[in-house]
Amino acid sequence: MTMPLLLTPKVGILGGGQLGRMLALAGYPLGITCQCLEPAKESAAAQVSERISGEFEDLQKLYELAKSSDVITLEFENVPVESTQWLSERVPVYPPPNALAIAQDRIQEKTFFRDLGIPVPAFRSVESRGDLDAAISELGLPAVLKTCRFGYDGKGQAMLTDPTSVDAAWERLGGRPLIYEAKIDFDREVSLIAVRSALGETAFYPLVENHHREGMLRRTLAPAPNLSPELQRLAESYAETAMRAMDYVGVLAIEFFQQNDRLMVNEMAPRVHNSGHWTIEGAETSQFENHLRAILGWPLGSTRLRGLSAMVNLIGFFPNPEVIHTIPGGHWHHYGKTERAGRKIGHVTFCAQTESERTWQLAHFPDHGK
Amino acid sequence: MTMPLLLTPKVGILGGGQLGRMLALAGYPLGITCQCLEPAKESAAAQVSERISGEFEDLQKLYELAKSSDVITLEFENVPVESTQWLSERVPVYPPPNALAIAQDRIQEKTFFRDLGIPVPAFRSVESRGDLDAAISELGLPAVLKTCRFGYDGKGQAMLTDPTSVDAAWERLGGRPLIYEAKIDFDREVSLIAVRSALGETAFYPLVENHHREGMLRRTLAPAPNLSPELQRLAESYAETAMRAMDYVGVLAIEFFQQNDRLMVNEMAPRVHNSGHWTIEGAETSQFENHLRAILGWPLGSTRLRGLSAMVNLIGFFPNPEVIHTIPGGHWHHYGKTERAGRKIGHVTFCAQTESERTWQLAHFPDHGK
Ligand SMILES: Nc1ncnc2c1ncn2[C@@H]1O[C@H](COP(=O)(O)OP(=O)(O)OP(=O)(O)O)[C@@H](O)[C@H]1O
Ligand SMILES: Nc1ncnc2c1ncn2[C@@H]1O[C@H](COP(=O)(O)OP(=O)(O)OP(=O)(O)O)[C@@H](O)[C@H]1O
Repeated sequence: MTMPLLLTPKVGILGGGQLGRMLALAGYPLGITCQCLEPAKESAAAQVSERISGEFEDLQKLYELAKSSDVITLEFENVPVESTQWLSERVPVYPPPNALAIAQDRIQEKTFFRDLGIPVPAFRSVESRGDLDAAISELGLPAVLKTCRFGYDGKGQAMLTDPTSVDAAWERLGGRPLIYEAKIDFDREVSLIAVRSALGETAFYPLVENHHREGMLRRTLAPAPNLSPELQRLAESYAETAMRAMDYVGVLAIEFFQQNDRLMVNEMAPRVHNSGHWTIEGAETSQFENHLRAILGWPLGSTRLRGLSAMVNLIGFFPNPEVIHTIPGGHWHHYGKTERAGRKIGHVTFCAQTESERTWQLAHFPDHGK
Repeated sequence: MTMPLLLTPKVGILGGGQLGRMLALAGYPLGITCQCLEPAKESAAAQVSERISGEFEDLQKLYELAKSSDVITLEFENVPVESTQWLSERVPVYPPPNALAIAQDRIQEKTFFRDLGIPVPAFRSVESRGDLDAAISELGLPAVLKTCRFGYDGKGQAMLTDPTSVDAAWERLGGRPLIYEAKIDFDREVSLIAVRSALGETAFYPLVENHHREGMLRRTLAPAPNLSPELQRLAESYAETAMRAMDYVGVLAIEFFQQNDRLMVNEMAPRVHNSGHWTIEGAETSQFENHLRAILGWPLGSTRLRGLSAMVNLIGFFPNPEVIHTIPGGHWHHYGKTERAGRKIGHVTFCAQTESERTWQLAHFPDHGK
């Protein structure tokens, strides 16, 4: 391309959590300065970057952000689409607002993938108790009932195992737009971190294996053990198709259910993703750097692996850091947050050259991520 | 050890240049916050960390720094030893002031190594023209005449090739304490990044090969090509001896002249070092992280290599970043400084798996570092 690269660009980020923090830290060596717009007083990103303090709906603040940013991105999925649209009339916003709109609504999201011929679990839109009963009789049980919007870390979900569990679930979740999904009897959950630049260049990290507990990601193994080249190609082709359809720019994470050699999309995240944190040490270029390069129209960085990695989330409380620091290849990531039950306050990445080394590392860090 | 590790320590840094910047950036993921004391208005570190603006001799500022830091370190070699001594009565200062005193004076430095049985070039202290003439007749020519203090990047030096060059050198350098060193006909220059923690644990990176031009480091190859285990062991034993003798804590860089299987110490730097910048991507733990871990009494991180690296300094002007970003394995480091002739404003690290890959990368980045 002929447009010269900005040498010291300013990136505006909607949201100021740990993802924004890691974006900001990835930016500095590249000459990129990030500033975040974040309403909450405590902000993991604001400790390491500039910050505009305000609501995502505050036009004055949005204007301030637009005026002082070369490009705007987001690290929080639930920013109002209208705000990103308003911003995008003034300054490039990546990922594009339409991608955000799709990701914010589980019905739109599953419809989007299904219409592209990409497998998703069978689903029905549920607006009333009648819809729910119809969905049960059409798709059967077990199933998962979820709120269409604002779900995260497994919140706003109910597992319907048999007819007796339906009433309680409806009691808890009914009254909002819901989605009824067939429960998938998956072999495992994997995710793909894909990235597409403003110039259309794409890159992919290897599929990783994710372990959840109580609805939260606990552990990621990179690459996913026994990953076949065919499965990787399949995931990449789905991501390529989806990104092209959305004219997507930035990192896109897609979570899949794997059944044998098949992949079904569970959901996507239009941003850097927890299951890609291992790339900071485990890959030649991190997802954070590649997201910044993508939205700035820079050439993407190599996604080559540096070996095997395992990422363990630190949830609720910090372990004794000495335990991590004494495990060779252990990398501690503190988000600058305080301890609170159920809160993601950090993660640890273990880098290994062999499977047995990784097993050994994880065995020596038993506190978290089981 | 029984002392529990601080979870979110505050580190005070004397100096606010690019070394402080990279220390601060290495600290954040570890929960470490750095603050620098720096007199200059423009500061590479202050862009990414807190900053106390003031002179290194200003007791009020030093007090402010001591009061708000759990430990103090330095990134600039020419801070007054007295200031570090004053600080060390209030808060731990690493490396210790005595190490700084030795490093600041070339006569003390060479005497220190010589007294430990570690080879150095033959040298004489030169305070007068008579001393100079005596040194010439005792050690012969060619030789290098250097100011004892405040030399960096080859400044304050004169090469004496034959008797006719002596007058001009004396004219330029005389009047200050000088050192006369035999000119070493070395095969190459190598350096060792060593680290010793507050608990006495030590770790070493492999020797690297350094290329200078006009007195400035241009390029580092890591590890040094054709590095023998014997040479590595020799360098480590010298560093171990020196660190123990100084009760050293932190990263210590030692620059050597290599002649066959011999090493002579040229000088040491009691801090993170330009020839260790490649460790950010090229080693499991960077010199910056290990320096922080060392001064905080944390277990040291693995110094295992991730492959081959080459570091090229960006001096004076920025190349087109696209050139770097399109070379797979190229990592751009911008110090947040503006262009100025002879100024170190950034560096690039190339990571490779094979020698030929590294050669290819360097061939595609011809602008700098020749
Ligand atoms: N249709 C399904 N079949 C089987 N298990 C499911 C289904 N939907 C969700 N799950 C399980 O619940 C977990 C959380 O579901 P989902 O990803 O939809 O929730 P979320 O709140 O959006 O989580 P996240 O924080 O990952 O975005 C999944 O990782 C999976 O383990
Ligand atoms: N005794 C010597 N024999 C041969 N070459 C020498 C000698 N002393 C210095 N040099 C050359 O000059 C270069 C700079 O010397 P020296 O490291 O003493 O200077 P400096 O100004 O302290 O540099 P730095 O910025 O690396 O600290 C060396 O790297 C080496 O190439």
